[in-house]
Amino acid sequence: MKSSKSVRDYIRTIADFPHEGILFRDVTTLFADPRGFRMAIDQMLHPYVGERIDKVVGLEARGLILGGAIAHQLGIGFVPIRKKGKLPGTTISQDYKLEYGEAIVEIHDDAILPGENVLVVDDLLATGGTAEAGIKLLERLGANIVGCAFIVDLPELGGRKLLEKLGMDVHALCEFEGA
Amino acid sequence: MKSSKSVRDYIRTIADFPHEGILFRDVTTLFADPRGFRMAIDQMLHPYVGERIDKVVGLEARGLILGGAIAHQLGIGFVPIRKKGKLPGTTISQDYKLEYGEAIVEIHDDAILPGENVLVVDDLLATGGTAEAGIKLLERLGANIVGCAFIVDLPELGGRKLLEKLGMDVHALCEFEGA
Repeated sequence: MKSSKSVRDYIRTIADFPHEGILFRDVTTLFADPRGFRMAIDQMLHPYVGERIDKVVGLEARGLILGGAIAHQLGIGFVPIRKKGKLPGTTISQDYKLEYGEAIVEIHDDAILPGENVLVVDDLLATGGTAEAGIKLLERLGANIVGCAFIVDLPELGGRKLLEKLGMDVHALCEFEGA
Repeated sequence: MKSSKSVRDYIRTIADFPHEGILFRDVTTLFADPRGFRMAIDQMLHPYVGERIDKVVGLEARGLILGGAIAHQLGIGFVPIRKKGKLPGTTISQDYKLEYGEAIVEIHDDAILPGENVLVVDDLLATGGTAEAGIKLLERLGANIVGCAFIVDLPELGGRKLLEKLGMDVHALCEFEGA
C-alpha cells in the first residue's frame, strides 16, 4: 500500500551520528524518493496557502534543498542563511550557542527588503538555536516572518516553544521522540 | 526593459572573495529574484527535455538549492553530494585537489541504484575538481550520468574540457572571463 506511506515513514533513523547517543533523523531518504520529496514540499506549504510570501529563506545546509524547491514551487526568490564566511557580499551576522561552544550564521544585508514577507525553512527543529539566530537576522533586516516550516520537530528539545515565544508561527510535518 | 535581462545579468561579481585577486561570481542575487531564479531552473533543464532522468544530484552547497528546485520541477528525487563527515549513513568518498591541499566529498552508498539516470547540478564550473570527484562517486555506484548542468562556466579554468574528456555532456547558462 505505497499510497499510505507518510512523510515520516520515509525518514531514516541513524544511531550515534554525529556522536554517540544521538538518534539522527536522516531526511536524505525522504528527499531521494520522488513521492516523498513532493509530499514534503506540498505539506510544508499547506499552512500558507493564500498568504503572500515574497521570499523563502533556507538555513544551511538541508534548508537550502527545501528552500530551493519551495521558492521554485511558489515562483518567488530564495535567500540563504549560511555559516560564517560563506557569503561573498556584505553580511550581518548572529552568534548562537551549540552544545559545545558557539556558531555564527550570516545573511547578505541586501537580501531582504524591509517589510518583505518571508517563510523560513529547514529540515529539523531541535533546540531551535539556529532558527532563532536566523530569525534575529531577518528581523534586523526588517523582514516580516510569515512562518517557520520544518519537516521534523523533536519536541523534547524545546525548539518549538522557543520559537513560539518569539512570536513565530511554527509548523512541522512530524515529530520524533528523543534527541 | 526588464524582460530583456538574462540570467547572466542577475549575477553579481564581488572582488577579492574568498581571497585577494579572485572575482567571485555571486549567484545569490540571481536566486533572490523570482524571475531570475525561475529562468535559471528552466534554462538548466532545457537541454534535457524529453530525456529520462531518475534523480538529480546536487553538489554542496549552492548545488543543493538548484538541485532541490530541479528535482521538484521534474517530480523526481534529490540526492546530495556533501563534504566529508556531513552524511549520516554509510558513504563512499572521493578526494580531490584544491588550490592548496585536498578536499573530500561523499555520497550515501544506497542513494543511487545501478543504471539510474542522474543529472548533476551546481552553480559554477571552474577547474571542475569537485564535479570530477562527484562524477567518480556516481560512476562507482553505477549511475548513468545524463549530463552536468551549471549556471556559470569559467572557461579559462578548464573545467568544461576536463569533464568532456570524462565523456560528460556539459551545459552552462553563461560564461565569465577570468578566475
